[in-house]
Amino acid sequence: MSTTAAFLIVGNEILSGRTQDANLNVLAKKLSGWGVLLKECRVIADEPPAIQAAVKQLSEAYTYVFTSGGIGPTHDDITADNIAEAFGVPLLLDPKAVELLENHYKGSDLELNDARLRMARIPEGGIHIDNPVSSAPGFQIQNVFVMAGVPRIFAAMLDGLQSRIKGGPAVASKTIITHKGEGDIAAGLVQIDADFPDVDAGSYPFMRMGRFGVSIVLKSQDYAQLEAAAEAARALVRSLGDEPEEPWDTPNDGQAES
Amino acid sequence: MSTTAAFLIVGNEILSGRTQDANLNVLAKKLSGWGVLLKECRVIADEPPAIQAAVKQLSEAYTYVFTSGGIGPTHDDITADNIAEAFGVPLLLDPKAVELLENHYKGSDLELNDARLRMARIPEGGIHIDNPVSSAPGFQIQNVFVMAGVPRIFAAMLDGLQSRIKGGPAVASKTIITHKGEGDIAAGLVQIDADFPDVDAGSYPFMRMGRFGVSIVLKSQDYAQLEAAAEAARALVRSLGDEPEEPWDTPNDGQAES
Repeated sequence: MSTTAAFLIVGNEILSGRTQDANLNVLAKKLSGWGVLLKECRVIADEPPAIQAAVKQLSEAYTYVFTSGGIGPTHDDITADNIAEAFGVPLLLDPKAVELLENHYKGSDLELNDARLRMARIPEGGIHIDNPVSSAPGFQIQNVFVMAGVPRIFAAMLDGLQSRIKGGPAVASKTIITHKGEGDIAAGLVQIDADFPDVDAGSYPFMRMGRFGVSIVLKSQDYAQLEAAAEAARALVRSLGDEPEEPWDTPNDGQAES
Repeated sequence: MSTTAAFLIVGNEILSGRTQDANLNVLAKKLSGWGVLLKECRVIADEPPAIQAAVKQLSEAYTYVFTSGGIGPTHDDITADNIAEAFGVPLLLDPKAVELLENHYKGSDLELNDARLRMARIPEGGIHIDNPVSSAPGFQIQNVFVMAGVPRIFAAMLDGLQSRIKGGPAVASKTIITHKGEGDIAAGLVQIDADFPDVDAGSYPFMRMGRFGVSIVLKSQDYAQLEAAAEAARALVRSLGDEPEEPWDTPNDGQAES
């Protein structure tokens, strides 16, 4: 069985259009390297029923769940409360987290008041996730990792989790570029997709320096299958009278175009 | 009852980290203007059970569902097939869509082959969504609007939908800026949140030109309530010995920081 994951973003500000999420892409790349397949991402509102339902569903459906957002000091930071509720455990003021916050605010002109102490509450049984940026920890409860929404804090917390995540082989990727149209390579790709069931094959058209092309992107945790599929893709492109090109690493061409 | 919506992104390339979604933010802003509350976004893999389950759940839970991705010519473009399946209707080659594609490819050196004709298949009863960029139409079936993933095609399709969407008053927004900390204004914001139930109040810390601050962002479809809540937020900032600032329009400060 593959190791799978879901990402849950708690964020009214993303759904209102005020802010663009930057964490999904960071998490996706990191999990590929850890050999974990990210299968779903949900962005939900800062509302108790939405948070509880989503965390329960995703926690049952996937090996791991990562969350971002809603763990700050204000009234709309209700992620910890609702994850504790979803798992039926109390949310407790954590002495170690209080100490971290005391040390953090000691050197500032900010006061560790009741609102900021909210950030030291952790569901019973939760394990800290270190926050090297602003001290207030995230936490892990069961298979759920609860992290901050601020991108540089999210990324720093995530970096600290590698030893807790047990994935498979890193997902490797091969990109074969052709200047034929996506509709021209489609039939051949159906065959490659059928012949190599453990390889994920995608096609992503692009326009670069005034010239159209398609990136055939192959991804797999089975490196022999991946190379065999890449060879089949090269043969497909040649059979259409074009010479396949391969970038040194996988570029981000923007989204698919047909 | 508010008019609500969900956004369903069908996209292995987003979940693998190859591509960053650009459509959620565009949709979110457009829906705010149309008086529709975007309550959820899901990114799912190009897999039949995932697509069918998500479209059924979201279609039942919200007034409208918008989808992006998976409607091109290749084997991984399976959105239309699975939405037809979810609604229990056949996916038919649509004569009007075929004509649009014939005209589109007539002027090019590309051939309207079987793969490209896949883009002319529309679930029975589906209503076209115009594609002014590359002709292949999207479609509406019941309360679900199925659109392309390519950002400029997605945006163009969305622009054509305004007359079909029946929302409430546009969501208006007020931003009050303070240079107090988020933890300092938290208690006052709890009160504002309680006093103005139809106003969504969020707080988003930022650092700009070396100086920390917090944007208090208030959003509502009730403009009198919104102005009253803004006045309460100004009073809160003044009560802490600071003078509230208001930008001319709502900036995107990046994500919340605590």
